[in-house]
Parts: sequence; C-alpha cells; structure tokens
Amino acid sequence: MAQPYRPDADRAAQWLLGALDAVAVWRELPALAEHADADLARHVLQEAATFVHEVVAPLNRAGDETGARWQDGRVTSPPGFRDAYQAFWRAGWPALSAPPALGGQGLPVALEFVLYEWLSAANHAWTMAPGLLHGAVECLRHHASAELQARYLPRLVSGEWLATMCLTEPQAGSDLGLVRTRATAGADGTWRLQGTKIFISGGEHDLTDNIVHLVLARLPDAPTGPKGLSLWLVPKVLPDGRRNAVVCERIEDKMGLHGSPTCVLRFDDAQAWLVGQPHQGLAAMFVMMNAARLHVALQGIGLLDAAWQIAHAYAHERVQMRAPQRRDPSRAADPIIEHPAVQRLLDTQRAWIDTGRLLAYRTALALDVGHQHPDAARRSTAQQWCALATPVLKAAWTAQAFHGASDCLQVLGGHGYVREWGIEQIVRDARVTMIYEGTNEIQAHDLLLRKTLPDGGAVLSQTLQMLRDEVPTAAPSWHEGVERLLGLLDRLARANEAQRSALHAVASDFLRAVALTLMGWARARLGALDADWDVATGTAFDRWVWPEQAWRCEMVARALDTAP
Amino acid sequence: MAQPYRPDADRAAQWLLGALDAVAVWRELPALAEHADADLARHVLQEAATFVHEVVAPLNRAGDETGARWQDGRVTSPPGFRDAYQAFWRAGWPALSAPPALGGQGLPVALEFVLYEWLSAANHAWTMAPGLLHGAVECLRHHASAELQARYLPRLVSGEWLATMCLTEPQAGSDLGLVRTRATAGADGTWRLQGTKIFISGGEHDLTDNIVHLVLARLPDAPTGPKGLSLWLVPKVLPDGRRNAVVCERIEDKMGLHGSPTCVLRFDDAQAWLVGQPHQGLAAMFVMMNAARLHVALQGIGLLDAAWQIAHAYAHERVQMRAPQRRDPSRAADPIIEHPAVQRLLDTQRAWIDTGRLLAYRTALALDVGHQHPDAARRSTAQQWCALATPVLKAAWTAQAFHGASDCLQVLGGHGYVREWGIEQIVRDARVTMIYEGTNEIQAHDLLLRKTLPDGGAVLSQTLQMLRDEVPTAAPSWHEGVERLLGLLDRLARANEAQRSALHAVASDFLRAVALTLMGWARARLGALDADWDVATGTAFDRWVWPEQAWRCEMVARALDTAP
Repeated sequence: MAQPYRPDADRAAQWLLGALDAVAVWRELPALAEHADADLARHVLQEAATFVHEVVAPLNRAGDETGARWQDGRVTSPPGFRDAYQAFWRAGWPALSAPPALGGQGLPVALEFVLYEWLSAANHAWTMAPGLLHGAVECLRHHASAELQARYLPRLVSGEWLATMCLTEPQAGSDLGLVRTRATAGADGTWRLQGTKIFISGGEHDLTDNIVHLVLARLPDAPTGPKGLSLWLVPKVLPDGRRNAVVCERIEDKMGLHGSPTCVLRFDDAQAWLVGQPHQGLAAMFVMMNAARLHVALQGIGLLDAAWQIAHAYAHERVQMRAPQRRDPSRAADPIIEHPAVQRLLDTQRAWIDTGRLLAYRTALALDVGHQHPDAARRSTAQQWCALATPVLKAAWTAQAFHGASDCLQVLGGHGYVREWGIEQIVRDARVTMIYEGTNEIQAHDLLLRKTLPDGGAVLSQTLQMLRDEVPTAAPSWHEGVERLLGLLDRLARANEAQRSALHAVASDFLRAVALTLMGWARARLGALDADWDVATGTAFDRWVWPEQAWRCEMVARALDTAP
Repeated sequence: MAQPYRPDADRAAQWLLGALDAVAVWRELPALAEHADADLARHVLQEAATFVHEVVAPLNRAGDETGARWQDGRVTSPPGFRDAYQAFWRAGWPALSAPPALGGQGLPVALEFVLYEWLSAANHAWTMAPGLLHGAVECLRHHASAELQARYLPRLVSGEWLATMCLTEPQAGSDLGLVRTRATAGADGTWRLQGTKIFISGGEHDLTDNIVHLVLARLPDAPTGPKGLSLWLVPKVLPDGRRNAVVCERIEDKMGLHGSPTCVLRFDDAQAWLVGQPHQGLAAMFVMMNAARLHVALQGIGLLDAAWQIAHAYAHERVQMRAPQRRDPSRAADPIIEHPAVQRLLDTQRAWIDTGRLLAYRTALALDVGHQHPDAARRSTAQQWCALATPVLKAAWTAQAFHGASDCLQVLGGHGYVREWGIEQIVRDARVTMIYEGTNEIQAHDLLLRKTLPDGGAVLSQTLQMLRDEVPTAAPSWHEGVERLLGLLDRLARANEAQRSALHAVASDFLRAVALTLMGWARARLGALDADWDVATGTAFDRWVWPEQAWRCEMVARALDTAP
C-alpha cells in the first residue's frame, strides 16, 4: 500500500548548499546576505518536509477519489483540503520569499521552489491552489497601481486570499491573440468585463474567503491580436463585501487532478480594475506565466520522484523469478529490483529526477541573482540562464514525469494499473503538466524559434561554454556532446527561411538535445559531490540517458539537410 | 465532440487483398481454398465495420463512466453491454474462423483479426469479454478430453458462453511457477480447487449464462515451480445447473477499462475437470496465451487508430496561430493541422498504425498457413514468423498505443485532458495493454533471450533475409538497417555468459530495433501499393520513425561492448 510522499530534506540541503554553493550566492545579494545561511536553509527545509509529509501528503488519495464538487455555482473542496490550506498560510509558507516590506519573510526563492516541488509530489491537486500566488504577487508588484497593491498585495503575499490566471477561452488556447472577453467603462471609473474563460484552475473554491482573478481582455478600442490585450484584476468579493458578477458555470471532468477545480468562469459585467497600461496585458501576464512555468517544471520533477518512491519500495518487496546474476542460489525467486530491466528503469528515472532538481535549484538561485545582484552583468547572465532553462525544464521534465511515472507503474505490473498503490493517479495527474502554462510544443518553439535562432544561438553558446568551464573533469563523452551541440548551433545560425520552416517540426528534438546536455552538467556536478551517486545514478545516466543526445542532434541536423 | 469509432473496411480489404495477396495464400490451404475469395472478404469486412460502428462503438463512453459494478458477488455490466454481446454472438461473429465441424464458419483467421482490431478501437472494455474465446477454443480443441470438448466447445465456439484465463495470484504474476492454487481429488472422479486468483478479466458478469474458467493449479503430488502446474476447466454453472463454488470477491478499481470487470475469484472447493496431462498445464495454457498476445497487439493498433481519428478531426477544425508556411495570408490563424509539429505528430502515429496493421495482418495469414498448409516447410516458416512477430507486435504496438494516444491527446491541448473528446479514456484504457498477457519486458525477454540468443539469431536472420528479398526496391537506408541488425545478430551469436546478463537490460532496445526493421518492410510494401500513402505516411516514417533503428542497435551493441 502506498505511503504518503516523504521529502528528503537532507539531500535537498546537501545539493543546494554543497553542489550549488548557495550560501556564496546569497552572500552577494544585499537582501539575503545577512540572514540566509546554511543553518537557516536546513531548518526551513526540515520544517517544510514535515509539513508536506504530515499535513498535505495524506490528503492526496481522497482528493483524487472525492474530487472537487460543483453545485449551483459553488465548489466544495475534497475532505481536509481547506483545513490544510488554512494551516499552510497561517504558518507563513506562502510569504517565504516575499519582501519583508510586503509582509514576507525575505528568504531565498530557492527554498520556496524546493517546497513547491515537494508539495506537488505529495499532492499535486492541492498544490494547484497556492501555485499561482508567487506569480500573481510579482505581476501586481510590477504593474498594478499603488491603490490596487495596497488593497490586494498583503493578503496575496500572506496567502489569505488566492489568485487565478484567466487567459484561455473556448476559441483561444495557445493563441491568446484570439481572446474575445471585452471591457466596457463603468460609471464609477472602474471597468466591467463580459466574456467566458475556460480551464481556470481554482476559479472557484472554498479554501479562502476571496479569490483575485487576473484576466486578459480587450478595451473597446483595442486592436485585434495579442497587442490589443489588457490585464484586469477582478475580485470574487468586491471591496464593499458584495459578490462580484463572476459565475462558475461548471467544473471540468478531467483525466486527473480531480481535487483541483478547473472552472468555466462567466464574467457578467464583472467589476474590474485595469492592471498596468492599456494593451500591455500580455507582457504583464508573462511575468506571472514565467513564474508558473518554472513551478510546472518542479511539479514534473516532484511527481516523478513520487512515482519513483512507490516503484522503488515495491521493487524491493516484490519477489518474482530468478534474476540472471542469482545472488542467492537458495531462493525460488528474487526481489525484482535485482532484475536488470527493472534496475535500468528505476535508475533512469532517478537520473532524470536528480539532474532535473539540480538544474531547477540552480535556476531558482539565478532568479534571485537576476533580480537582486548589484552587478548588472551578473544579473544579465542569471536572467539569460532563466530564460533558456525555463522552457527546457518545463517541457523535458513534464514529459518525463508522465512517461517516467508510467515506467514506474510498469514496475508494479497489474498492481500499478489498479488504484491501490496510488501510482496510476500520478500518471493521470502528471499528464496535464505537458499541456498547461504553454504546451510543450510551445516551449520547444520558444527555445528554438524565439530564443536561439534570432541571436544565431549566441546566448545558448555562451551558456554551454560557461557550463563546460564549470565541470572540466566531466566525462569526455559529455564534452563531445557539448561540441556537437555547439556545432549544431553554428549551423542553425546560418539557417535560411526555408529551413526555418522545417525547423518547426524538430523544435522538440532540439529542446531535448539541450535538456540532455544540461543534464550532463548536473550529472558531472553530482558525481563529483557524492561517490555513491556517481556509481549508481551517474553510471545509469551515462548508459541509459545520455546516448539520446547524439540522436536528437542528428534529427535537427537532418531537418537542415533535407529542407529545400 | 467525439464520434463513435468508424472502421475503414475498404482500406483493410485493399491491404489484405492487395498488399498481402491474401487470396493467393488462402488458395493453398485446403480448408479455405474453395470459399475464401476477395468478394467474401470484402463482404465480411463491410458487415463487421457496420456492426462495430453502429452497435459496439456507441457504448464506449458509458462503459467508462458507469463501469462494471459489483454487489454481493454479482457483477452488472454497463448499459447496453449485454444486449450488444447477445447480438454479437447470435450474429455468428465469434464463430467466424472456427472449423465448420465445430459449428464455425471456417473463414480465414485474418478476418477475425481485423474484426477484433476494430472492436478494440471502438470499445476496448466490451471487447475484453469475447477476446479470450478464440484462445480458449484452441486450448480445449488440442488438450481437452472428448467428453469435455463435447460439453463445452460448441457453446464457446458460438460465443453463447464466455471464457476466462485464471493464472495470476497475489504472489504469482509474471512468475507463474509461484502459483499456489491446489487441486484435491473429489469422490466423484472430478477434482476440487482451492485458492484465489486475481486480475481475472470477465471472471464474473451478466453477459452470458455461463462462464468457463481455465485455471492453473497444482495436483497434490506436484513438484514446485512451473513444471508442477496443471490446467483445469471450472465452469461457473455446473452441468447439473447448480452454481459452482467460484466466488467473485470484488472487482478492481482501475486506471481505465472501467467497463470490463477485473475480478478476484475465490475457488472454494470448486468442482474442476483436468484439461490435458497432469503437470502439463503451462504448455496447454500457452496455446491460449499466444493467441491472446496477438489480440493484445491488435488492441494497441486499434486504440492508436481511435486516438488518431479524434486528433486528426480536431486538428482540421481547431484554428490557432499562424502556421509558418502561411498558405492563406488573409487568415488570423490557421487550422493546427498546418502546423509542422502537429503534422509530424499525427503522421508519426499514422505510420505506426499502418505498418503495424500490415504486420499484424501478415501474422494472421501466417497463423492459418502454420496450421493448415500441406507443405511442412511452409508451415514451419509461417510458425517461425508468428513466434517472432508475436512478442514484437505485442510490446511495440501496445507501448505505441499508450504513448501515441498521449501524443494525440496533446494535439487537443487542454481539451484532450478533459473527458469531452474521449481521448483521455483511450490513454487510460491503452495503458493496461503494456502489462497484461505478459508485460512488455517479458515480451522483450522472450524475443532476445529465448527466441534469438539460443539459436544464435539464425531464425531471425533468415526472416530478415526473406523480408529483404520481398522488397528489393525499398529505400537504401532500410537495406542498411537490415545489414546493421544482421551484423548485430552475428555479434549476439558470439555473446558470452557475462554479456548475456548485461543483455537483459537492453532486451527492450533489441525488440524495438526489430520492430522498426519489420516496419520498414511494411513501409516499402505500402509505398509500392499506394503512391499517396508513400508521399504522406511513408515519408513521415522515413523522417520521424526510422532514425531510431540505428540508435537502438547501438544501445544493444554498447551493452555487448561494456559487459565484463
């Protein structure tokens, strides 16, 4: 029987503080230098691990089985979800990395990232609720008026209220330029929104007393397309205590994530406040979406680890057939962990989880550096890293979450297909991460067509060279792989218009080649940190994961070769 | 909104009769030569397509949503399932390929295969019920006493009664040697079984008046391990009309396949008849299991086609963003089928479906040749093909069903993750095909460790050379791939004991390399048959599917290189 997810705080601390030397990073940032030290980080991680394991993880199964329920426009959360959420925000977790001036604790954002990875692993559906808070706070901090900030920021920073991101409409998914929701001027100087938004996670629920919707819509004079979108703040409960005209028409019946209500929201002349400048809504929303994309990458890593924990435990218990090495001749059958096919499968997932974690934690450290470092050049390098790493982590680790969780299910055979062990829920829950916050195809397009081709691969080349300098003693095969990718970037820089069109089809291969190359850096770093890891997981990476890199590079090169 | 699955009878007839020249095959088989012609085949396929589309497909959604229900040992099927099953057997479909002497219609088994592919595509859960009939009939024909055959065969041939295969126990899944269910001698000359079997598909239901269980169990004096297993026939209703002591304790709550009851069966001194010789149960059961494995391969192909149909229709309707080639400059956005990433994804699945079909139909023709051909050499070649193709088709096309259906879901974005379009059900239903009737790891082990290494790859080499001779004008890259695989077989023939152990971990790569090589034969054959197919799907195969073959061969070679 499945046990609630158990985070490993010691290992997270070891990697953050050891492999990434986080304290040295924090020392260079004025807002963190004085208080963010190793002891504090360890303490926060231990407390977070306890909360996740004891409060949030035990609710995961009921969340799937009972699900969120809609009746007459109201949504009831699964058993225990509200109490857990109230405990969560009252304990101060949402405010972890927010600035003290806003009521936050001013801790490194990397600690918040680790927390969210664990929350997602323990209970993905529950974690959908606070998952957008960080992005909403950033969005309002940078774009909302002082009045709106004063009214909404404190309660969003604390997590007393929750937030949504209202983008999608029936005819407008990946293509937000097709959004039709319209704003008209109200008599009181505020605005009124009319339109229907779909796929709104947490669009209605009973976890908090208010919900702050951030909504993309058009002003009456707005041009068509994405440049005519503005951003609006629409509270569920108005400042005077009345309900706003935001109606939850229904919630979706989904493959997974049953505990999280995915709402159809109708804005019936809902009262709305403009956030930022007219027609600049997409830029403001992207602040929120980039934060959300990193969170989704962490969901993938967390879910894969949750699946691995179940399969790993099962493979030690389950005894079936003789393994080829037959360690103990007296046995009629061996634990399946001794079967090479099972070992390969589990070690492969371990390699994905661990390298993904190191890359995600590095990205989290870079977020603080990018915002706060006194040296503009350091800020710029950090921001470039985040811009490249975000689509790579989002796409590659959500795909791995689904396919790798399915591989972990396979270890349990028929026992994985039934609900008892909890692993089929992970596969179902994980599937959505490949879709939301920009499908994985959008991420691949973003990486190759927007972030690599326009500058001729210059920033990505610099980043690869930086990584190479950081791990000079990495395996020769990895250094060859970096050269291979650099060579491919040279060719991409000379791509003509006809080839660009052909490259659309192999953007996903390109993203995968970049992901594997970044993993190679993490593999070298972790191997140097921990000899046991090097032998077990590092070797599995070299054998079962790394060979794909050459194949993916070749797929991209072939697209260049065969384009007209 | 999803439409019920619609089979393409014309295309199936074209491939069977055109690409595979089925009539020429049938003419050489005495039992088929006189009546199995092209007109008959076309007529049967048209009738089958109509039945599948009109009667079985419309029940698929309700099967998933209502599911099979258990109460007090009885199982109620989803709405419409019983009526559809009664119509199915009364129309004579289960008896299609059975010998006329047993009440069958004596038609080619290939037509039955096509029917089952379509049934699975239309309603996988419903199709689980008759799915084991063919194997049960074969098993009893070859192993049961004349008395048992007389009592049970006619009603199993007609499908008036259904059958199960009772193998798995809580401690015995892939390893049937661990089975504990025991037989004791009854006073009346029959036997009594005691034990519990799990994961029994259709172990209890209301579709038919009787269910014939074929059960692996041990005689009192049986040796331990697989060589101590005997096979028993245990009817739900005894010849005298009383209920036998077979109790359905519960049904499983599963990821998918909700309409098919997966039962825990307790045998409480159930009255049982021995089938075949004592301690020869596994061999008798394997007759049934091999038939079942081919059916599972067809399930995979069918489910993938069902997912493709939904995604393909959606991609033509859904308008989102400009495609790079911008065919119509006046549009604000293009149908997503024009986006290269979507095209690649759909064309890739099409290539898998079509090549899988041709290989499966070839295998079905070979089944009849292997049983019936007057020339022993021809029988032997056909049997060898079936022995090799069965694990390859089962493992590769069930994996593709799950991963490819998930890719098709991705085309729908968020609309794929909600239930409305029916595609997430296909992903959930398809997942089990990678597990049952021998996990895909068992299939890979069977192909490499049992069917290839022991004869030094001789039979597989002959088979590859036969395929090469059949399509001399295939692409040079395919001929190179055949050489590469033949070279690998040479190396495998010299593998030492230490390398054999390492090969366990790459058996799945080996199976995949063989699958891709067989697909290349089908690609050449279909390309020669149909110029449109050659341009659209054949080119997609060359670009997106075939390159993996070299990579998989390299993974296996590397395991040989790096073993001690």
